[in-house]
Amino acid sequence: MAKVIDFQTDPARYRHWRVEHDGPVAHVYMDVDEKGGLFEGYELKLNSYDLGVDIELADIIQRMRFEHPEVGCVVLRSGKDNVFCAGANIRMLAGAEHAHKVNFCKFTNETRNTFETAGEDSGQSWIAAVKGSCAGGGYELALACDHIMLTDDGASNVALPEVPLLAVLPGTGGLTRITDKRKLRRDRADVFCSLEEGVKGRRALDWNLVDEVVPNARFDEVVDERAREIAARNNPPEGAQGISLTPLRRQFAEDGSISYSLVDVALDRGAGVATITLSGPDMDAPASVAALREQGAENWMLRLARELDDAILHLRFNELEIGVLVFRTAGDPSAVQAQEAALLALEGDWLAREILLYWKRLLKRIDMTSRSLVALIEPGSCFAGTLAEILFAVDRSYMAEGEFEGDNRPNATITLTDVNFGRYPMGNGLTRLQTRFLGTPEAVDAARARLNEALEAGDADDLGLVTYAFDDIDWEDEIRVFLEERASFSPDALTGMEANLRFAGPETMETRIFGRLTAWQNWIFQRPNAVGENGALRRYGTGRRGEYDRRRV
Amino acid sequence: MAKVIDFQTDPARYRHWRVEHDGPVAHVYMDVDEKGGLFEGYELKLNSYDLGVDIELADIIQRMRFEHPEVGCVVLRSGKDNVFCAGANIRMLAGAEHAHKVNFCKFTNETRNTFETAGEDSGQSWIAAVKGSCAGGGYELALACDHIMLTDDGASNVALPEVPLLAVLPGTGGLTRITDKRKLRRDRADVFCSLEEGVKGRRALDWNLVDEVVPNARFDEVVDERAREIAARNNPPEGAQGISLTPLRRQFAEDGSISYSLVDVALDRGAGVATITLSGPDMDAPASVAALREQGAENWMLRLARELDDAILHLRFNELEIGVLVFRTAGDPSAVQAQEAALLALEGDWLAREILLYWKRLLKRIDMTSRSLVALIEPGSCFAGTLAEILFAVDRSYMAEGEFEGDNRPNATITLTDVNFGRYPMGNGLTRLQTRFLGTPEAVDAARARLNEALEAGDADDLGLVTYAFDDIDWEDEIRVFLEERASFSPDALTGMEANLRFAGPETMETRIFGRLTAWQNWIFQRPNAVGENGALRRYGTGRRGEYDRRRV
Repeated sequence: MAKVIDFQTDPARYRHWRVEHDGPVAHVYMDVDEKGGLFEGYELKLNSYDLGVDIELADIIQRMRFEHPEVGCVVLRSGKDNVFCAGANIRMLAGAEHAHKVNFCKFTNETRNTFETAGEDSGQSWIAAVKGSCAGGGYELALACDHIMLTDDGASNVALPEVPLLAVLPGTGGLTRITDKRKLRRDRADVFCSLEEGVKGRRALDWNLVDEVVPNARFDEVVDERAREIAARNNPPEGAQGISLTPLRRQFAEDGSISYSLVDVALDRGAGVATITLSGPDMDAPASVAALREQGAENWMLRLARELDDAILHLRFNELEIGVLVFRTAGDPSAVQAQEAALLALEGDWLAREILLYWKRLLKRIDMTSRSLVALIEPGSCFAGTLAEILFAVDRSYMAEGEFEGDNRPNATITLTDVNFGRYPMGNGLTRLQTRFLGTPEAVDAARARLNEALEAGDADDLGLVTYAFDDIDWEDEIRVFLEERASFSPDALTGMEANLRFAGPETMETRIFGRLTAWQNWIFQRPNAVGENGALRRYGTGRRGEYDRRRV
Repeated sequence: MAKVIDFQTDPARYRHWRVEHDGPVAHVYMDVDEKGGLFEGYELKLNSYDLGVDIELADIIQRMRFEHPEVGCVVLRSGKDNVFCAGANIRMLAGAEHAHKVNFCKFTNETRNTFETAGEDSGQSWIAAVKGSCAGGGYELALACDHIMLTDDGASNVALPEVPLLAVLPGTGGLTRITDKRKLRRDRADVFCSLEEGVKGRRALDWNLVDEVVPNARFDEVVDERAREIAARNNPPEGAQGISLTPLRRQFAEDGSISYSLVDVALDRGAGVATITLSGPDMDAPASVAALREQGAENWMLRLARELDDAILHLRFNELEIGVLVFRTAGDPSAVQAQEAALLALEGDWLAREILLYWKRLLKRIDMTSRSLVALIEPGSCFAGTLAEILFAVDRSYMAEGEFEGDNRPNATITLTDVNFGRYPMGNGLTRLQTRFLGTPEAVDAARARLNEALEAGDADDLGLVTYAFDDIDWEDEIRVFLEERASFSPDALTGMEANLRFAGPETMETRIFGRLTAWQNWIFQRPNAVGENGALRRYGTGRRGEYDRRRV
């Protein structure tokens, strides 16, 4: 699987989905092209999916928000008869390398979370209109919707048959959403997850596996009715015109480095380090809704988010040996503040709000990236507000102290703004500063007292905002030693360590999906009972069951 | 490692620990016998430990509570010069099978939790008095104490060097306790976990890694002073005489089945099923403190807890192919209620309280047991109060409905008592009934309204207290089909599924240790970078570092 995976797509290129618009209601049809697998060696039968299918879904969700603000309800349905969705493609999973499986699950989980929060965040609620078999990852798609409707045709069902059929978990949030969101009684959850054939009709409703069971003859009608009701309740901006998410400007160099308009990714594959440099504003902040609309996808904060998001996904999937991501910025901190302030001032406008929401999602994507993350705060950098938030997402930060010889750029500073105190919560529900200062909550107040000040290294260090501050005598050596040290550690141990240290404090359904559920699934994804020659994944479809080592661990 | 592991020991047999009593203060010296490893192939150098060392520690904690109620503070110290404790023995870990490693970590975690809660539950606070190197599992021992004192001798330190040295995690709660209990800033936690040499002196205090740094010359004196202060604050019952935890009456049959005085474990290794039958009271309930003291370790509730605890540990470690534990009871439910009521009436007494606290720990041990758990509620059974709580710890329960032909025992009933509503919280801080009815909290109230009633199957089913109720026509078939089905599933998938379904709702430090941290550690315990031929665990001590596959997952 050495093919480069591209996360950019657009409706003209979709192979697996169809979107129809009907004013405030959008209908998203999953209609997977069997021959359209991202890799060789499997067919996407029964509306099963692989990463390629999910990349298109992620694109649909994103465009729904930016290109179709008039939509208040999205109905997710199948384009096929008799099957809603059979879940992740088993042959793809059986053939994929461990790292791909894990990355695939993480991306699909992030995508589910994105449309799950669309209702609350953006007033775009998702309905799953289930006809036919809705199994495994298919039911997990439905579980992430706000409302699940099941037709009562005597055959259509919902199921999580992973444990009995495949010896793996319903790992795209399934196990967590049935306990934490649908709140199934745990013994019923145990029964449900043991039933290959799933549950249909009345019992699905009684067990709270779905929200409505609808007579088959009236299904389409009731779904439309419900969609219109929900859309009306969400009250989307009438007559709003979306912007166009134009293609990214992106160039790959031969060594794998990437240049976007605002993001530069320099790769050192030998050292296992990618240096990601974000450029400050190259344009004026929008002074009005009209100006923001005029900027559209060119708006600095939106463009930067899209480019950084793409870069991170690219590194996750295509550069497995890059163990450390180094974040740098270059630009004028006050210009960053101005861009952010402009959006906050225009927040009544859906587009301004969507851009800020996108940063919330993107920062969570950074939190969830299983590479060592480090920020360098150098002379001439612009870690202000939204960009300063990156400092609290990384594992460590190094700040340059004072003037650097021969460097006439302004001294390194950090500027906190309002957004660092609530606008971008982590998955655990706390701000990154609250999580950072879990043991000393007064430190959050002390930081807040210095709002909008350009803090130099001494102050930043005193406030606990950086890990280390070094002057120009020590700077290069310290960072070199750190990068070498990190490269000498086991990547697996670092992944496990970072997954534990980054999410202190409370847990939420979201952190439980990425923490508890994912960790167990990753464990199972290595067990011979699942992935071995005679394991269930390999044997699926051969008519032979997996042969299991019966020892419990 | 086919040797049978025995969890029963007593002070006369300790090889690794020494306990000295000084009135309200006890001094526990860790002084590991290098040659005393539980298995062949490694020496327990530098106060490193294996399961055998931990079994003795668990015994010490248990006896401290029951045999030494006069103790209000326990000081944990090293019996060796220059080293406090080097953590789990690496050669043991490198040579152990995956299942043993995982079980070993679970048991050590449970033991840490037990002395961590001893202060709050029983007024026996633990102090770690650290002199010498305190690394890895050694520091994790200290982290579970209520108070950590470090001598300032220029050399003594605390460290979590697992990631750099061994390519595994500090998995005995280390990563979770530094973020959730000590609340280290996450970037400092990242630094700390990367430092082979750890942190000493003032910095250890500044980072909240320890509670006190004491000049070396005054160390013993200050430790004694602090221990006496803490003991006085806990105000242990003056002049209290402990009871003696006499040896269990236990017999193994040739097929591996076990008989205790009140617990019978019947093994069907072919089917992978152990049937655990608990007998109701065989003696009167104690009517006074004097009577309870007279009963001592013979008290029905204490004896049953000790026997069941031993049986579960035995099955976990020695019967890996037993995938299902079936819980049964036989006896008079009102006699069970009477025993429980007697202890509650005597709760002002330390022993009555300790017995109930032991059940709290034991029920958590059941929750954490990674086998499928099922309860059969049959005619003549006595699932009342404390024993009924087992029904809410299991994955599923089957209840016999009405009279069974040819069976003249009383109909099956369930009796809820006060203890089911708060006395035995799970690790997540909720009662098992609250967890069960997370989605329908009113169901807890409905159950409470039927307190002390012997509920037959119809009522129990209506109240949601059982998974299934079957009459005598279906009973045997249904249970047979379930057991066969369970045996056909992958043990690993079941372990992962149960670990997710059992702990719905809120997370606590305790659930995070067993959920997030343990799941990641189990994953790492299978990765070639840790356990492969050239992995760090295997190469430890050879002077060569692990050779790592650098791909991130």
